[in-house]
Amino acid sequence: MPEYKSSLTPEGYLFSVAEAAVKKPGRKDIALIVSEVDAAIAGTFTTNAVKAAPVKLCMRNIRSGRGRTIFVNSGNANACTGARGLKDASEIASNISRHFRVKPSLSYVCSTGVIGVPLPMDRIIPTLGILLDNASDYSFLDVAKAIMTTDTFPKIASQEIKIGNKTGVIAGICKGAGMIEPHMATMLCFIITDIAVEQKTLQALLKDSVKRSFNRITIDGDMSTNDTVLLMANGILGNRPITADSKYTGAFKSALDKVTYELARLVVRDGEGATKLIEVVVKGARNETLAEKAAFAVANSNLMKTAIYGNDANWGRIMCALGYSGVPLLEEKIDIFFNGTQVVKGGLSNNKDKQATEALTSKEITITIDLHSGKSSVSVLTCDFTEEYVRINAEYRT
Amino acid sequence: MPEYKSSLTPEGYLFSVAEAAVKKPGRKDIALIVSEVDAAIAGTFTTNAVKAAPVKLCMRNIRSGRGRTIFVNSGNANACTGARGLKDASEIASNISRHFRVKPSLSYVCSTGVIGVPLPMDRIIPTLGILLDNASDYSFLDVAKAIMTTDTFPKIASQEIKIGNKTGVIAGICKGAGMIEPHMATMLCFIITDIAVEQKTLQALLKDSVKRSFNRITIDGDMSTNDTVLLMANGILGNRPITADSKYTGAFKSALDKVTYELARLVVRDGEGATKLIEVVVKGARNETLAEKAAFAVANSNLMKTAIYGNDANWGRIMCALGYSGVPLLEEKIDIFFNGTQVVKGGLSNNKDKQATEALTSKEITITIDLHSGKSSVSVLTCDFTEEYVRINAEYRT
Repeated sequence: MPEYKSSLTPEGYLFSVAEAAVKKPGRKDIALIVSEVDAAIAGTFTTNAVKAAPVKLCMRNIRSGRGRTIFVNSGNANACTGARGLKDASEIASNISRHFRVKPSLSYVCSTGVIGVPLPMDRIIPTLGILLDNASDYSFLDVAKAIMTTDTFPKIASQEIKIGNKTGVIAGICKGAGMIEPHMATMLCFIITDIAVEQKTLQALLKDSVKRSFNRITIDGDMSTNDTVLLMANGILGNRPITADSKYTGAFKSALDKVTYELARLVVRDGEGATKLIEVVVKGARNETLAEKAAFAVANSNLMKTAIYGNDANWGRIMCALGYSGVPLLEEKIDIFFNGTQVVKGGLSNNKDKQATEALTSKEITITIDLHSGKSSVSVLTCDFTEEYVRINAEYRT
Repeated sequence: MPEYKSSLTPEGYLFSVAEAAVKKPGRKDIALIVSEVDAAIAGTFTTNAVKAAPVKLCMRNIRSGRGRTIFVNSGNANACTGARGLKDASEIASNISRHFRVKPSLSYVCSTGVIGVPLPMDRIIPTLGILLDNASDYSFLDVAKAIMTTDTFPKIASQEIKIGNKTGVIAGICKGAGMIEPHMATMLCFIITDIAVEQKTLQALLKDSVKRSFNRITIDGDMSTNDTVLLMANGILGNRPITADSKYTGAFKSALDKVTYELARLVVRDGEGATKLIEVVVKGARNETLAEKAAFAVANSNLMKTAIYGNDANWGRIMCALGYSGVPLLEEKIDIFFNGTQVVKGGLSNNKDKQATEALTSKEITITIDLHSGKSSVSVLTCDFTEEYVRINAEYRT
């Protein structure tokens, strides 16, 4: 578990968690993030055609660009639950809005867990009172813990930013583990800041940041119905709102990128059953789209992922994945490196398999592929593929 | 292992196997199929941009439409081996052509096994003499055994066809197990018949048959560099060659389809680590392409495959895969059945998860998905996903 200083939480936010036994009793499984004032809010959502009820609610609310509260439950995705699912999500939002006396559109609801089972409203609604009443008793880290499903540690990251003589904070939490895949954000991620940012700029910065972090990780190639990233900026710091061309836009962007990348990395490190973090770097591609396509073909190959797990410098499986990626390439130009050891030179064995096998015993593997056909490069994060992944998913319903 | 009557081998073919210790000693690992006369030959090959040397050789030879011999080695794919790989494949073909005094273009060479290691020509060439000298001592089943890699049983299928007062035979063998994926044929498949078929018709019938058999199976979504299907028709039966509109075209097509489908099914049944055969049927799609896309998204989902392995009627994972398949769909119209038990009705739980869980203990699972948005349907075969798949691929180089 990464270290986290509670001092690195932005001002003007309250947190709460409670036990509603959504799936089963024994842990805090509902959580609340409350901004003390209305905040600008940005979001990115799953592109899966089957969207969970809370995703639909968030997508509707976010049109206003404003937010106040985020409710999250783990243990149940409230997906494939039809009209009842939407009604349940709305009812939770209404209760929270009433409590804080804010417009219903300012209350966001997110869910993660098993698909196709209605939310146990008979347990959630009574517990909601406790959650709301204790809204100043908990920390952001407590929320990070409450939203875990098959995660083995809470995921939290933060950055400080100097804005004039004041210091603002961006902090984020997320949950990952399974159903993590390329074309979308991770399942649930919440980022909060006390820095004032104009909403349009906030949305643009978030979209760009997600593209190069959560959209460049893959654990099992399965895209969730619930993927959501929300970024709230309540402006409590009192700075002049950051716009596209402000003095501090660059600093904010850089800090936000660090937070999203760190969280994305934590998600992959905690991939279901994973023992190794794998970074697939594709260089020398004709453009970024092709570089990404090649990198994902390699990162999603079960055969590559099992080879890395087994410390097997089986670069043939990488050549094979590149070949079926759909990216035009010249076999005889390809170079491949495992953590700096060149295993393929001009499409052929470099006779360094033995050294490479040793390199693979490391917990962090970088596979660098140079296509030598252009100047674009991309990095995608993934993890190895183990018996434990199978065990988790054959025995446990996320 | 399926039963096989040796009487169901077409006339006019000789078979041979020998031990060349391609990868390691202890088993017959090179094989030969010889037609006693020049035969019409049809083929389909991997669409992987990285093609093995023997695939390149076969693709060049098949332009003539004629063939006489097929050499196969297991244990080494002769892929990513550059100019040396091509020279090695040609040298094997030349030796065989010289022995049978046929044109070099009539000798086909196929390889399967590890990628990136040159063929051990110092062991193959001396053994080739033994292989050629014993070309009448072995059976088609012996060849099926020699081409196995991680396969647990040889795969063979055959059909008889009445042509006038004579009876012809189509028989096929193939190897599968890993690196099996949608957009291409299985790794290696050889089909032989004594029925005379005009080459253009043979190619058209094979292409169509492969499309609906080998191209509709998936084990791990990884496409090989060596996938090859060859179909030889030597015409020994003496019938008037079958053309596109002959009296017996339908019967031949139907028998060929049965052979390819049976072999494809055997490949999936023997998928690496598999314990269950899964048929994914998508009905009610707008067209066949969309039906296929939806079926493959489900069939390739690791989460679906681990759920079936664990007897978990987790239909949410199927809804999720349909959602990210890229196929336009209406969630509220979808019905899903496990072996006849309806688990999803109009996109919602049908509260039959308990019955479905029992249905899943069967060794053959049919997942039927009705999109209710058109009239096209497609069936894709796959298998479940187990710890054993990981073990095989983390410890053993195919």
